[in-house]
Amino acid sequence: MKSFPEQLARSVAEHGPLMVGIDPHLDRLPTRFKQSFESLSGASRREAAAHAVLDWSLEIIQAVSGEVGVVKPQAAFFEQLGSPGWAALEATCQAAKKAGLVVVLDAKRGDIGSTASAYAKALVDNDGPVGADAVTLSPYLGPESLTPFVEYCTSQQKGAFILLRTSNPGSEALQGRGATGAAVEVAQWLENWNSSLKGPSGFGPIGAVVGATLSADELAHWRKTCPHTWLLVPGVGAQGATPADTKPCFREDGLGALINVSRAVTFTPAGEPDPTDPVQAIRDRVRALKAQF
Amino acid sequence: MKSFPEQLARSVAEHGPLMVGIDPHLDRLPTRFKQSFESLSGASRREAAAHAVLDWSLEIIQAVSGEVGVVKPQAAFFEQLGSPGWAALEATCQAAKKAGLVVVLDAKRGDIGSTASAYAKALVDNDGPVGADAVTLSPYLGPESLTPFVEYCTSQQKGAFILLRTSNPGSEALQGRGATGAAVEVAQWLENWNSSLKGPSGFGPIGAVVGATLSADELAHWRKTCPHTWLLVPGVGAQGATPADTKPCFREDGLGALINVSRAVTFTPAGEPDPTDPVQAIRDRVRALKAQF
Repeated sequence: MKSFPEQLARSVAEHGPLMVGIDPHLDRLPTRFKQSFESLSGASRREAAAHAVLDWSLEIIQAVSGEVGVVKPQAAFFEQLGSPGWAALEATCQAAKKAGLVVVLDAKRGDIGSTASAYAKALVDNDGPVGADAVTLSPYLGPESLTPFVEYCTSQQKGAFILLRTSNPGSEALQGRGATGAAVEVAQWLENWNSSLKGPSGFGPIGAVVGATLSADELAHWRKTCPHTWLLVPGVGAQGATPADTKPCFREDGLGALINVSRAVTFTPAGEPDPTDPVQAIRDRVRALKAQF
Repeated sequence: MKSFPEQLARSVAEHGPLMVGIDPHLDRLPTRFKQSFESLSGASRREAAAHAVLDWSLEIIQAVSGEVGVVKPQAAFFEQLGSPGWAALEATCQAAKKAGLVVVLDAKRGDIGSTASAYAKALVDNDGPVGADAVTLSPYLGPESLTPFVEYCTSQQKGAFILLRTSNPGSEALQGRGATGAAVEVAQWLENWNSSLKGPSGFGPIGAVVGATLSADELAHWRKTCPHTWLLVPGVGAQGATPADTKPCFREDGLGALINVSRAVTFTPAGEPDPTDPVQAIRDRVRALKAQF
């Protein structure tokens, strides 16, 4: 079993850097999925919606398998459906792994001590309910909130992506910009861990989330500041960045960044009718975007 | 229906500032709960453990109802049991509300846009699966990651507690100390929201998490800097702070702080046998601690 960063290196070399986000916005699901729950309410609506969300997620997995190497389910859209939603998330992650995809669960958890360990068990432990390959984490509580996950990176070959500099307009408030603010501190933790845990590719298992809508200068700054760190880069598609904007996130050999796209490939563009072959339609959008890298 | 800060004001006036954390550490559960799942593994273990966790949580609710006004279930310990764990969390929160307790879900979520809204639906929406009265949140993504919850504070009389200065040793790394670091910025957001949303008590619905193990000077600093903000103060009991240490967190009239205690009252002290009347034993420990405020 390869370590997480080496899995990513192999995956990007084979499939390119595109990662597909599985974000089941209930109001964006195709009509044939929505009609199973739209007329219901309360717990029965959540139960039916969770089944629809799982079916939709399995369609995404079918469409992208063989096209990209990595998927990123967003926990919140499953969590809003309660217990049946969590069952759908577990089944989605298992199906993606069975299809040979690397699974990065977007959960942005962050806590300390035994609580952080409980989140690690919940989300990445091989004997746990979800068993993702990696998870996104929030660093506000300090480095010790991340160490239970760092331990899983060695004991179970897992990974993590820590929020560093995000793509939302208000992100600078705490994170700072470039060589200022909290992100500078977080980048140091990442490099400290990764330079001791790095594999043959030169990367370690603790990645960073860096938004594609940042300036080219700032993206280049983080690539240079964190030479042993995989970057998870959201912001292409619905948030407005283009594949070309992400160029500074890569190392010269084309490794080092996963570029996430969600709505722009998983949903039919607004105003267009549902396609007759929805799996092929998703695959076509993924291929068109892949060709731009 | 009173607003969240007014509910807290009434609750603290009636029951005092103690809040009981519901943290079902599997290995600390009493033997009679553990024996139902200890010999199992995988999904069947999680299923049985979730039932045990719910039964234990209902016992805590029975013991503390009428003694304290607020409980704080910790999402991670339920989440590690997957879908059945989430069902147990939903049932725990519903039972606590039915018993007249205010429910603050400790989940430390943080995301942006539609994802943040999905977490709000998941955790505090009255039509959602959990329907807690308030939730803890992490601020690293900036103020817009909190605004979907702020909207729930007015539309559904809900509350939130934002991580400000926590009690763990590494918390200073990003948060700073006193009038330095990211916490200064977060405190400004809170006061901006609360001074426009405050009720007759003078407090608004967006509280702050401030660790009891901070220095008395720093606790007094946050109380003074955030005059319209409820403080959620963990750290008493297992983490080493005493009720007396929390004095600077209160306004002169005794309002303004909820002091959390979890393991020190909910679990039998190490080395002691399981009591014959476990509900009464928990109640006795709560009363003994209440008497120290």
